[in-house]
Amino acid sequence: MEKQERIILVTNDDGITAPGIRALIEAVRPLGKVVVVAPDSPQSGMGHAITIGVPLRLNQVDIFEDIEAWQCSGTPVDCVKLARDKILHRKPDICVSGINHGANHSINVIYSGTMSAAMEAAIEGIPSAGFSFLEYSYDADFSLPASVAREVTERMLRSDLPAGSLFNVNIPIVDKKDFKGLRLCRQADAKWVEEFDERRDPHGKKYYWLTGEFKNRDVGEDTDVWALENNYASVVPVQFDLTNYKLKKQLEESWKDL
Amino acid sequence: MEKQERIILVTNDDGITAPGIRALIEAVRPLGKVVVVAPDSPQSGMGHAITIGVPLRLNQVDIFEDIEAWQCSGTPVDCVKLARDKILHRKPDICVSGINHGANHSINVIYSGTMSAAMEAAIEGIPSAGFSFLEYSYDADFSLPASVAREVTERMLRSDLPAGSLFNVNIPIVDKKDFKGLRLCRQADAKWVEEFDERRDPHGKKYYWLTGEFKNRDVGEDTDVWALENNYASVVPVQFDLTNYKLKKQLEESWKDL
Repeated sequence: MEKQERIILVTNDDGITAPGIRALIEAVRPLGKVVVVAPDSPQSGMGHAITIGVPLRLNQVDIFEDIEAWQCSGTPVDCVKLARDKILHRKPDICVSGINHGANHSINVIYSGTMSAAMEAAIEGIPSAGFSFLEYSYDADFSLPASVAREVTERMLRSDLPAGSLFNVNIPIVDKKDFKGLRLCRQADAKWVEEFDERRDPHGKKYYWLTGEFKNRDVGEDTDVWALENNYASVVPVQFDLTNYKLKKQLEESWKDL
Repeated sequence: MEKQERIILVTNDDGITAPGIRALIEAVRPLGKVVVVAPDSPQSGMGHAITIGVPLRLNQVDIFEDIEAWQCSGTPVDCVKLARDKILHRKPDICVSGINHGANHSINVIYSGTMSAAMEAAIEGIPSAGFSFLEYSYDADFSLPASVAREVTERMLRSDLPAGSLFNVNIPIVDKKDFKGLRLCRQADAKWVEEFDERRDPHGKKYYWLTGEFKNRDVGEDTDVWALENNYASVVPVQFDLTNYKLKKQLEESWKDL
């Protein structure tokens, strides 16, 4: 029997026309058959949203040379669900998401559409990774992030990883000569301090823009934030069992009367 | 100096007019000053989405007797962020979210707007809980879920919980006489098997509705799914550090050459 071809599912949250997904496609193209299923419009900050109230559209597009590509009207998580059920009709061998225009380190993992798409694949038992470049601009030089994505994807493919393995990879803004390589990290304990920008519309009614300042309250040198500040690309293994076992154990004592 | 009044922030993802949030307000009203900030429309399945691309609206409404209430055009997470920054101008003492019309046990925690709102508050250091009733219907009898919400909220308020404590509470469909009480659990290892319902619009073009079947692959008797099947309300302590420490440790050996 012929060996099944290796399928690499590529998605993102910035939308199928973003430069970052093109860089990721080129990075992983030599490693297998690439199939792209990505949102037809930017979906940043969508977290693990799924589309329930409206139906989804899915259209094949020809924008990458010799690559099967589909755009979807839904969220990044919808894209992964549709890819599995309606396009591939089987599990891909690996799923890579990104390369995101902007950071998804530390607490950003929970707001990130890039990471949620990868997590959705990991829940299906597919080894997955999300890649994010700290540079936001659309004309950024993606050569360093692309080489990191290639290296991590190759390493994942040749490793015997447990089912559901998932990685959050962030790449710093740094000259190639100063780049120190990959570093396995934990998620830094950081958060956003919000300040909404309050404005008035032409009719005098208030509206608000979400803005905020990132605060790292974690001094550890084993975190993703530390790694990025020190010119490493951070690699955080991510889980989707959200049980707080430490608190559970503690409450098994103090809430004995439950 | 006068002691500051206790503030209970109430939110949800079914929208401010859903019966479930009314039941939750009545349940916790005796425990402090309730302030409601909830979406102006249903936001189920929004996960930890935030609104970046459009501005937010926030309007005070008078639909609950003697309760300050605001409706917001954004996601559940947006509601919590706005409540802190623009309405309360301080941290509430506790945040409760729900009561959701439908289950949020096991893997549903990551798709759930109810739980994401509670998680957003927990990231701010506010003790928080999300409550979900397995009954979907809008005319469900909320007396059991309301009494569970009251009991958990009271217990949280009198406990010395670590900062960021967060609970995912689900309530089974059961006669009160058969209800066995609360049970501390871990998140079951379960997932959705998707099957998209493919249809054609009046112009002959395909579209897809997300549907799916829930599959529990976890046989443990310490899970939330087990508890609910056995007439307990499940209480899962939830974390937002998503680092997979077990995989990290394993890879510190096998990926030594990183």
